[in-house]
Amino acid sequence: MKHSIVIHNGTIITMNSDFDIINNGVLCIKNDKLAKIEPLKSDAPLPEGEKIIDARGGIIMPGLVNTHTHLPMALFRGLADDLTLSVWLNEYIFPAEANHIHPESVRLGALLSGAEMLLSGTTTCCDGYFYEDNVAAAMNEIGMRAILGQGVIDFPAPGVPKPEDNVNNAIKFIQNWGNISPLITPSIFCHSPYTCSEATLKKAKDAADAKGVLFQIHAAETKDEYVSIQTKHHTTPVKYLDKIGIIDQNTLLIHAVWLDDDDIEIIAKRRASVSHNPESNMKLASGIAPVPALLKAGVTVGLGTDGCASNNNLDLFSEMDTAAKLHKVNAMDPTVMDAVTVLKMATIEGARSLGLQDITGSLEIGKKADVIIIDTHKPHLVPIYNPVSHIVYAAQGADVQDVVVDGRIIVKDRKLLAVDLEDIIKKVVKISETIKKH
Amino acid sequence: MKHSIVIHNGTIITMNSDFDIINNGVLCIKNDKLAKIEPLKSDAPLPEGEKIIDARGGIIMPGLVNTHTHLPMALFRGLADDLTLSVWLNEYIFPAEANHIHPESVRLGALLSGAEMLLSGTTTCCDGYFYEDNVAAAMNEIGMRAILGQGVIDFPAPGVPKPEDNVNNAIKFIQNWGNISPLITPSIFCHSPYTCSEATLKKAKDAADAKGVLFQIHAAETKDEYVSIQTKHHTTPVKYLDKIGIIDQNTLLIHAVWLDDDDIEIIAKRRASVSHNPESNMKLASGIAPVPALLKAGVTVGLGTDGCASNNNLDLFSEMDTAAKLHKVNAMDPTVMDAVTVLKMATIEGARSLGLQDITGSLEIGKKADVIIIDTHKPHLVPIYNPVSHIVYAAQGADVQDVVVDGRIIVKDRKLLAVDLEDIIKKVVKISETIKKH
Repeated sequence: MKHSIVIHNGTIITMNSDFDIINNGVLCIKNDKLAKIEPLKSDAPLPEGEKIIDARGGIIMPGLVNTHTHLPMALFRGLADDLTLSVWLNEYIFPAEANHIHPESVRLGALLSGAEMLLSGTTTCCDGYFYEDNVAAAMNEIGMRAILGQGVIDFPAPGVPKPEDNVNNAIKFIQNWGNISPLITPSIFCHSPYTCSEATLKKAKDAADAKGVLFQIHAAETKDEYVSIQTKHHTTPVKYLDKIGIIDQNTLLIHAVWLDDDDIEIIAKRRASVSHNPESNMKLASGIAPVPALLKAGVTVGLGTDGCASNNNLDLFSEMDTAAKLHKVNAMDPTVMDAVTVLKMATIEGARSLGLQDITGSLEIGKKADVIIIDTHKPHLVPIYNPVSHIVYAAQGADVQDVVVDGRIIVKDRKLLAVDLEDIIKKVVKISETIKKH
Repeated sequence: MKHSIVIHNGTIITMNSDFDIINNGVLCIKNDKLAKIEPLKSDAPLPEGEKIIDARGGIIMPGLVNTHTHLPMALFRGLADDLTLSVWLNEYIFPAEANHIHPESVRLGALLSGAEMLLSGTTTCCDGYFYEDNVAAAMNEIGMRAILGQGVIDFPAPGVPKPEDNVNNAIKFIQNWGNISPLITPSIFCHSPYTCSEATLKKAKDAADAKGVLFQIHAAETKDEYVSIQTKHHTTPVKYLDKIGIIDQNTLLIHAVWLDDDDIEIIAKRRASVSHNPESNMKLASGIAPVPALLKAGVTVGLGTDGCASNNNLDLFSEMDTAAKLHKVNAMDPTVMDAVTVLKMATIEGARSLGLQDITGSLEIGKKADVIIIDTHKPHLVPIYNPVSHIVYAAQGADVQDVVVDGRIIVKDRKLLAVDLEDIIKKVVKISETIKKH
């Protein structure tokens, strides 16, 4: 049997439940799926394949999973930093969105973000924004796996001038993208418990349940949110959301910084998942999510970058490094959040937090072929005692050499194959010139 | 007048005292020095130069300054992580040093680190280790600027079996390297107040003063050190060092995590400098240095990576990003440690902390030509509203395209020119195979 793609000459980090690592491994892809993952015996011939990829002694691993993005916000990367949250949002981000977010800018911003993610080894993302149809079209065009939700918020938003249409628009997005592409999985993205009324939250959650899709929501991100929910509902954000029936196993709580012990117990009991975004939480000074306690309680936690305007990149290698180090110093314990735990968050646990654990996040026969190759022949990745340590503590996005998504080679030798990156950059720069003038 | 090198077609971030940023700038180098830095008028011809470097619309800036390294420890990158400090040191690092540190391994480890630093935009480092003659030879060979100190510690150390020879060996190193190369500046590196006796500290400081060189010392790094100095000397590490005359304007206090308000006042009053190593302090769970308070008190603070075994890379782009974000979340204030402040720490303030502020750390006429070019034509650096924001929050080491040190082109299009990187990697891998067996 001839395989579509054969990848060889590398160390395979499978991220399967036994955490198998295979030295001198060979990985075979048949159409969109993983067909064979095993060590190559020294005298054995290479399996036959239409395309052969030489990992050149590097690391072969599952593509990374970014559990929280606002892809079009790449248009605002570096527009405003080092400001209080209210100045940043009200004086920069909201006006920029009001003036410059339209279907074509959303498409271009998403393509730019897709290019950045693929070139830094991310093969799946979970996004929420407006004009999400255009995000979906961009992800499909660039060849990246994505869970996407059309934003629900009780204010006039780009493309949704009447807030009363918000949930219906989100439902329409699910209908539009339910069966169009194997790469795109629709979901519901409710902005937060402080920007959506109880009625909106319930209506949106009912819609997610009726359609059987993931319900994403920013929750317990900042102290201001915590205080505002306390004032209005006399309880914590998590308990409020739980009381109105929002939190269950199809719920992804994004940020989850301001939690007490009871909140953690609720999240664990309801089998909800958490998207941890350490760099965004640090940059906006939101706080430090109690991730070690969440993990101890058995909660599934994935890693996310958040939008580019609050990070300011989509590089999960940097995010892994920061996550490991932040929690060590916060706990004053260097054994907290070891490299294996963090790598799981960026791969299989991230996939699990999105309900995609049977599709992606690990290299196992029968799963979709979402594979990346790390070029380790670089001074900052030499010598190698432990490849997992290198991925978390030493590597950077630019070390990703090749990327396969859904069985298609999307990046070869750091070149994107499906789109014209020069054209995307040129058009984004043009939009940014208009943004600068405001 | 024909220049040696002319760099054009980029935004020049000078890091001079006015923080001038020049759009479409041209920078001319004559021999080892900066001769001209100015905007290129649209109709003006390019100045004549023997070599012309096109920055291709990227960023032209001073090379970064890494104020704390143990270069040969790149040999132990990823050998042991996620362990308590005592297990990490006593069961892994000290035995590895005892068995595998010899002149040739030091030379190769330093060359590997030099390659990593240059390829990630660092043109000056401040190092302390053993067999430092071999570090100096390696830095000179690879073409990097360095302040180097032969390690002083009151235990038997690699190459210094008798501790009573420690200060004399350090003095010999200064004599050996005082006038050999414009790149190498010798210094004294005393390990710490808990590993050197009062007599050793004083003798070493006297030697530094007599020779007029920088005195580097790890100080107030961990809680264990703080407690041990309290127990033995009934005061804080900084007050103890001050009492015995160690702290003055030629002293670099490395880490400076465990400080009280009086310690900060002493450091400021004595005009000593601090090397801030946030990633190492996080990974080893040492704590968070009070850098905003040190800066407020007027202390010069530079940025450092520490050795590779506790980071695990030498990338100052990652270190800048982490420094900015860590202090924001620690202070719960996103305006703390803005991008400009952090970039200063990685350039001119780093140079000042080492006493090299008249030589490097900014692009000013008459200073040495230590220049890097950032390639911004990449999806994660598009669009550009503020180049400083990109350097701190979005760029990675691999975005460095060209590097000039002391007027010599050392990296061209990401290729090291002065050394055979393949050969270095091959030899380091061979050493690591021996280390693995232990």
